[in-house]
Amino acid sequence: MPSPVISFLSDYGHADEFVGVCHGVIAKRAPSARVIDLTHSIPRHDVRAGALVLRGTLAYTPAQVHLAVVDPEVGALGINARRAIALRSAAGPLLVGPDNGLLMLAAEWLGGAIEAFDIGHSPERLEPVSATFHGRDIFAPVAAALADGAPLPGLGEPLTVEELCGLELSVAQPLHGALLTHVLRCDHFGNLILDASHEQLLAAGMRLGEALTVEVAGGEVAGSGVAGDAHPARYASTFADVAPGELLLYEDAQLMVALAVNRGSAAALLAVARDSELLVRRA
Amino acid sequence: MPSPVISFLSDYGHADEFVGVCHGVIAKRAPSARVIDLTHSIPRHDVRAGALVLRGTLAYTPAQVHLAVVDPEVGALGINARRAIALRSAAGPLLVGPDNGLLMLAAEWLGGAIEAFDIGHSPERLEPVSATFHGRDIFAPVAAALADGAPLPGLGEPLTVEELCGLELSVAQPLHGALLTHVLRCDHFGNLILDASHEQLLAAGMRLGEALTVEVAGGEVAGSGVAGDAHPARYASTFADVAPGELLLYEDAQLMVALAVNRGSAAALLAVARDSELLVRRA
Amino acid sequence: MPSPVISFLSDYGHADEFVGVCHGVIAKRAPSARVIDLTHSIPRHDVRAGALVLRGTLAYTPAQVHLAVVDPEVGALGINARRAIALRSAAGPLLVGPDNGLLMLAAEWLGGAIEAFDIGHSPERLEPVSATFHGRDIFAPVAAALADGAPLPGLGEPLTVEELCGLELSVAQPLHGALLTHVLRCDHFGNLILDASHEQLLAAGMRLGEALTVEVAGGEVAGSGVAGDAHPARYASTFADVAPGELLLYEDAQLMVALAVNRGSAAALLAVARDSELLVRRA
Repeated sequence: MPSPVISFLSDYGHADEFVGVCHGVIAKRAPSARVIDLTHSIPRHDVRAGALVLRGTLAYTPAQVHLAVVDPEVGALGINARRAIALRSAAGPLLVGPDNGLLMLAAEWLGGAIEAFDIGHSPERLEPVSATFHGRDIFAPVAAALADGAPLPGLGEPLTVEELCGLELSVAQPLHGALLTHVLRCDHFGNLILDASHEQLLAAGMRLGEALTVEVAGGEVAGSGVAGDAHPARYASTFADVAPGELLLYEDAQLMVALAVNRGSAAALLAVARDSELLVRRA
Repeated sequence: MPSPVISFLSDYGHADEFVGVCHGVIAKRAPSARVIDLTHSIPRHDVRAGALVLRGTLAYTPAQVHLAVVDPEVGALGINARRAIALRSAAGPLLVGPDNGLLMLAAEWLGGAIEAFDIGHSPERLEPVSATFHGRDIFAPVAAALADGAPLPGLGEPLTVEELCGLELSVAQPLHGALLTHVLRCDHFGNLILDASHEQLLAAGMRLGEALTVEVAGGEVAGSGVAGDAHPARYASTFADVAPGELLLYEDAQLMVALAVNRGSAAALLAVARDSELLVRRA
Repeated sequence: MPSPVISFLSDYGHADEFVGVCHGVIAKRAPSARVIDLTHSIPRHDVRAGALVLRGTLAYTPAQVHLAVVDPEVGALGINARRAIALRSAAGPLLVGPDNGLLMLAAEWLGGAIEAFDIGHSPERLEPVSATFHGRDIFAPVAAALADGAPLPGLGEPLTVEELCGLELSVAQPLHGALLTHVLRCDHFGNLILDASHEQLLAAGMRLGEALTVEVAGGEVAGSGVAGDAHPARYASTFADVAPGELLLYEDAQLMVALAVNRGSAAALLAVARDSELLVRRA
C-alpha cells in the first residue's frame, strides 16, 4: 500500500528550523506518511498568494491531506483571534490550516468544503501550545493524525461550512472597451498574476499575437481613477515571442493570465505591486 | 517496521549541492533510512547556534540518529585538528558530528553521552577523505551506517566521555536588582535569544505584562561596564501584546527567553549581536 | 525491495513552487520512488555549471534515474527549439532533461549514452504542455515513469546518440612554461573551478606547497592577450594552509582544480567570472 501523502505549503522560509520541526512532528505521529514541500516561500503573511499557489498545485499532487500555514494572526486573542480548522472537500482530500481564507480556493477547486472542524483545542495538539508556532503545535500534528487515518470528527469541534472565513478575489471588469484588471499576486520574477480570464480578454477584442497597451490606473491607490503611464505590450504564448525587455500578456503554467517582461520584471517596469489596477486594451 | 530516521542539521545552506550529496551518501548506505532536514541555515561556523537549535528540536523528532555539521575547523591538522565523533546518549538516540561542542547540549538534553567514539578513521568513511567536506566523507556515512543498524563500537576508536569538547553557555546574573543577560544567538528575524530563564526574571521581580527597561551594556566589549542606551520593553506572552515597532521580552517556542520587536528586528533596534550584554530591569 | 531513487537537479531555486510541483508529479506517477534533491541553485540558465555539478555527484548517489533541468530554450520553437531527451548510460542509470549538453558530462562519466529518445511528445507528458514549465509537464513525468519501471523505448521517439547536443569544455594549455586555464564555473563562495588537471600542474613544474603567480589574461574578453594583474598564490591542500585573505590553488572535493581565497572570494579578488582566462605559473 502506498504511503499517505501530505502536501505542505507555508511562508516559513528556509532561514530557520520551522519547516524541519514540522517534518519531525509529522514523522513522529505518522511514521509512514510522506511530506511533499510545495513551497515555503509564500511572501510573509500573504494569505491570498498562499491560497492561489495552493490551488495551482492541486492537479499535480497525490496528497490526501494538504497542510498550509500562512498565518498573520497566530497568537492573537479575543476578537482578533482566528480559528484553526480542518476541512473535508467534496473530492476527498482534507485541508488543515488557519481559518483566514488560505484554504478556501483549494477547497472550492476540490468541489467545496463539506465538513469543517475547529481544531484549536484538538486532542492531537502538542501541549503547551506556543503563542507563535501553531504549525508545530496544532496544524502539523492534526495533519499527521489525518494522514495516519484518524477520523476527522474526533480531531475538533464541528463547524458549519458557512461559518468559515472566505477569500474574496477581485474580478476584472470591462471598461470603455478595455479591461480593468487587478494584480492578485507578484511572483519572485516580478511576473504579475491578474484577475482576468482568457475569455474576458477575447470578449474585449484582444487576440493572441496582437499589440496591447497596459496603463497603470492609480497603483496602490486602487480606484483613484488617475491614469498612469501607458506601456506597449503583446498578447503572446510564451516569453520567447517578444524581445528581451518587452512586456507580454500570457497564460501562465497555472492557466492564470499574467503580465511579464522577457528576461526582466513586469513589477519593476510598471512600478506596481499586489492590488494595483491595470487597464489593458488593444493598442 | 517504520524506517529508521536521521535528523540532519548544518550550516551548508541551500546555495550548492552539499546537502543533496549527503542525502545521496545516506541513501546509498542506508536505503531504508529517512532523513529529516531540520535546517541547513545555521549561521556559518556558529557552533553555539547549531547546538541550541539542535537541542530545541529534540522533543519534536523521532530520529534515532542526529547528524549535525557546523565545523569551522574542518581539514585543520595538528594542534588545531578537531575529532570527528559519534555518541550514544542515555536516552538512546545517537549523535554524529565534529567534536567542537555542537552535539553536547543535545547529548545533555538526552540524559548525557554514555559512549563516545572517534570516527575520523571509521571503516565507513569514504576514501579519499577530502580536506573540506567531512559531511560527505565521514559524518553522513557513519550516521547512515548507524541508522542501518551497524553497532556503534565498530565505527571508530573508543573515547572517554570526559575527553569530549564541551560547550560553555553563559548564565544571566542578578546585578543591583536587574538581570545581566547575554545574547546566545540571533535568529533570522533579529530576535535575540538570551541566557536568562523565566525563573530568573521572576526572581528579579519582573512580572508578565509589566514594563521593563533594556540597557545595552557595552555590546561586543562584554563586561566593559559602559552603559548603553536604555530601551523601553514589555514582558509579554506574544508579539501581538505590544504595538508594531515595540520591544518585548517573551518565552519563545523553544521555551527560551528572548527579546523581539513586533514586526521588526530587536538586533537592529538595540544594535547588538551574539555575545552582547544586556541589563534587563523593571521600568 | 528498496524504493527506486531519482536524483533531481535544476536552476529552479527555492523562491516558488516549481520544485514542489515536480515532486508532486513524481509522487503521483511513481508512488514508491524517492527523490533526492541534489541542488536547485544552479545559476539560472548556466547549463555548463549544471552539467559539472551533476557529474560531480554521481559517485555519491544510488539513483537509477537522474532528472536535470537547466533549460534556457524552454518553449522556443522552430530553429531555436531544443529536444527533450531521455538517455540510458552504459553503466545503467538513466538521464532525463533538455538536449542542450546538460546531461552529457554525466552520461560520459557513466560510460557514455547507449540509447537516446526524444520525449517531447512522450505518452507520459502532462497535457496541455505549458510553454514554460517542461519540468512539470515532460521531464518529471518521464523520470517518474522510468523509476516506476516503464521501458525507455515506449517513452519517446528513438534518436541516435550522435544526434545529441554535446557539451564542449575548454582544456588548459601550456604556454611559455605557464598554464593557460579557464574558469569553468564560479560557486556561491566565489571559488573558481578551472579546466586544469593536477597532472597538468605537475607537468608545468608546480609542486604542492609552492608559491605561484596567477595572472588575469583579459577577463571576459577571452583571448585578448592583454595581461592583467598578477596575484601571489599557493598550491595547497586545504584552505587552512594559507592565511585568511590569501589565494590558494587546490583540488576541491570533486577533484577539480580550483582557485579560492581562505575566508574570502577568489572571484572578487581577481575580478573574474565564468570563462575568464587565467595564466598560472611558478612564482
